[in-house]
Amino acid sequence: MKFQTVKGMKDWYPEDRATFNWMANTFRQQAVKYGFLEVESPAIESLSLLSEKEGEEIKQQIFTFEKKGSEQLGLRFDLTVPMARMFIAKQKELPKPVKWFNIGRMWRYEAPQKGRLREFYQFGVEIFGSDKPEADAQIISLIIDSFQALGLTSKDFYVKINNRNLLQGILDGLGIGNISEVMTVIDKVAKISEEEFVAELEKLKLTQAQIKKLDSILKTKELKQLKDLNELARQGQWELQSVFEALQDNQAFVQFDLTVARGLAYYTGTVFEVYDREGKYRALAGGGRYDNMIQLFGSEPCAATGFGIGFATLGLLLEEKMLIPAPDIGVDYYVAPIKDDPKVMALANTIAVQLRKTNRVDVDLMRRSLPKQFDYANKIKAKKVIVVGENEVKTGVVTIKNLEDGKEEKKKIKEL
Amino acid sequence: MKFQTVKGMKDWYPEDRATFNWMANTFRQQAVKYGFLEVESPAIESLSLLSEKEGEEIKQQIFTFEKKGSEQLGLRFDLTVPMARMFIAKQKELPKPVKWFNIGRMWRYEAPQKGRLREFYQFGVEIFGSDKPEADAQIISLIIDSFQALGLTSKDFYVKINNRNLLQGILDGLGIGNISEVMTVIDKVAKISEEEFVAELEKLKLTQAQIKKLDSILKTKELKQLKDLNELARQGQWELQSVFEALQDNQAFVQFDLTVARGLAYYTGTVFEVYDREGKYRALAGGGRYDNMIQLFGSEPCAATGFGIGFATLGLLLEEKMLIPAPDIGVDYYVAPIKDDPKVMALANTIAVQLRKTNRVDVDLMRRSLPKQFDYANKIKAKKVIVVGENEVKTGVVTIKNLEDGKEEKKKIKEL
Repeated sequence: MKFQTVKGMKDWYPEDRATFNWMANTFRQQAVKYGFLEVESPAIESLSLLSEKEGEEIKQQIFTFEKKGSEQLGLRFDLTVPMARMFIAKQKELPKPVKWFNIGRMWRYEAPQKGRLREFYQFGVEIFGSDKPEADAQIISLIIDSFQALGLTSKDFYVKINNRNLLQGILDGLGIGNISEVMTVIDKVAKISEEEFVAELEKLKLTQAQIKKLDSILKTKELKQLKDLNELARQGQWELQSVFEALQDNQAFVQFDLTVARGLAYYTGTVFEVYDREGKYRALAGGGRYDNMIQLFGSEPCAATGFGIGFATLGLLLEEKMLIPAPDIGVDYYVAPIKDDPKVMALANTIAVQLRKTNRVDVDLMRRSLPKQFDYANKIKAKKVIVVGENEVKTGVVTIKNLEDGKEEKKKIKEL
Repeated sequence: MKFQTVKGMKDWYPEDRATFNWMANTFRQQAVKYGFLEVESPAIESLSLLSEKEGEEIKQQIFTFEKKGSEQLGLRFDLTVPMARMFIAKQKELPKPVKWFNIGRMWRYEAPQKGRLREFYQFGVEIFGSDKPEADAQIISLIIDSFQALGLTSKDFYVKINNRNLLQGILDGLGIGNISEVMTVIDKVAKISEEEFVAELEKLKLTQAQIKKLDSILKTKELKQLKDLNELARQGQWELQSVFEALQDNQAFVQFDLTVARGLAYYTGTVFEVYDREGKYRALAGGGRYDNMIQLFGSEPCAATGFGIGFATLGLLLEEKMLIPAPDIGVDYYVAPIKDDPKVMALANTIAVQLRKTNRVDVDLMRRSLPKQFDYANKIKAKKVIVVGENEVKTGVVTIKNLEDGKEEKKKIKEL
């Protein structure tokens, strides 16, 4: 083949696109139920915006453009950054809280040989303007509702919830200094062995006593079991407690987990990740509070919380659980003119136009023989075929053949 | 403002996005009615694919990426090229004709000071595998149906149809050699004066006799008036005649126009453009037959026809004609807890969850006073407000206030 799909990118053929639309429409319906409004941002942003939040290292992962003028531009790699920019542009006039969602495409540069996706879709949700735990609880509820609307149950997935103030307070309390590096290690704890975990912390110069205490605290299952916390940790504990209270109707889906740190430096309060129960896949969704970003982007401080659900990983779980509906991509009628005659073709066309008012209708575009037309009608999953010839022109009556059960029915064309 | 939208790009705030979704869903419904299936391709393609069809000059207009490995990549600038690539990848297995549509985003590099859009959406439709005029007629019907479904009538728009074989045959017949340059001038005839037209043709070394004859022929209003045609022109005339016959139910929308040439070199047969009747805007849509592209892309020859409708220009016409529906982006209920009390907040939440089964429901996330909550409810266009306090917790009865007419109604919470 002379031309190929770019590595790490995917072509969306009809079956795949139907599944995508099913997921996207489900997300859209659920978000709208909660009063979120749909927005979209350009694919292209200034490189200075894209790299502001996560610093220089993210530039490696951005698809950047060749400069044709003075502009330094790149493709967005998440939805939170552009949504924050859009919020700031109207921050003064918009009633707070602002509740937005976006179903959009984004890109991350990866070397092609890795075989990882370089173009992907997310359902992104943000609330700007509320610093209350109810806001965090609401977006977690929205995730749970969305997953349930797709057919998943509490047996299939759960939400691990933590709080960065709580975790940071605990690390402070243990006298640990290089908190963001340690949080990155904590984030990996589920993926690495106990020995590797200890080794990584040793590399970060934690003492054996610190490691032992940290290891023990991270295994705490109940938020209330955490005692003797410093002020920052107590603040985090209170926030988290409030989130759990607001989620009491969804108890079966949520779980306190101190190891959820969300490596990226910008999270400030509640953080969460969604996983399949069997732990087969990477996180299905993730998010949390980022109260400092709006200020970092040069505007008036404003609390914010949000999440992103990736379509790709969730799609794998839905497929495994056989929850993806068979795509309904056939037509209801196929109209088959059997003669290359103006009157016959005109009648076939008239019938198609008439039926299209309430049906999906295909009609021959190849001037093929009847057997070939039936073959095509079967391949495109037509439910019924109407054959049109000179006789039908004369009588005004057609035979409708049902391809599913083979039955035939005669009808006046006017009554179709 | 520290960060801005990149010039030539647009942020889609909720009202705009609602309009976009209305247009996209209308296109989707109409395409599905005709048996077209939805597909999507990556935003990013190899530069060799993108520049294959239109040659080096198009590279100026492509957003190209900085090379991180050996790949030369760019953003797609239309939908036909990626769809042709996708078709070729499954050309052998797919039943012909293949009928696809795509509602997608694309990009064209323009210097920012021009103020033209650099990111835009199109509704793209392609039929691969049929060389028959019925295929061209079908996609023109789909455009007409789509425009009508958006509320436009034959008083608002029309489709100018021509045929490249007819035009080329006529130019051949006049002894004109540099056909593609001359076609580019013909394409501009509606936009330039008679004098400019003559001057441009003189520059291309046409004789006065050729110019005079051409000018007269281009004004032909009826296809049948064209006489003494050579074989190529007669072939085009027959194709065009067949297209018009297949479109006889849509006579009010279509018009023969020899000046529609579609500058791009790849069109082969029927070509068409859609314009507003008053001639205020650029083409609302355009397309035609491109029977050579699949072969040019290195595959087995395959006939193809298609079109693209741009959202931006069409949006201007719809706005002018006041056809864009008011976006329904409010909520049905706003639930207002009036006390920062766990029981009150829990009840407010329970009510919101219950109502969300069939409604769009927002609930306070700010712990604000009641007047501030009403102010917010009004601003987000809530239809009804339910106030929840200790009394409601005790009685299980709430008052529903209709913000549109001010009326109040009491209801048991269970019966909401």
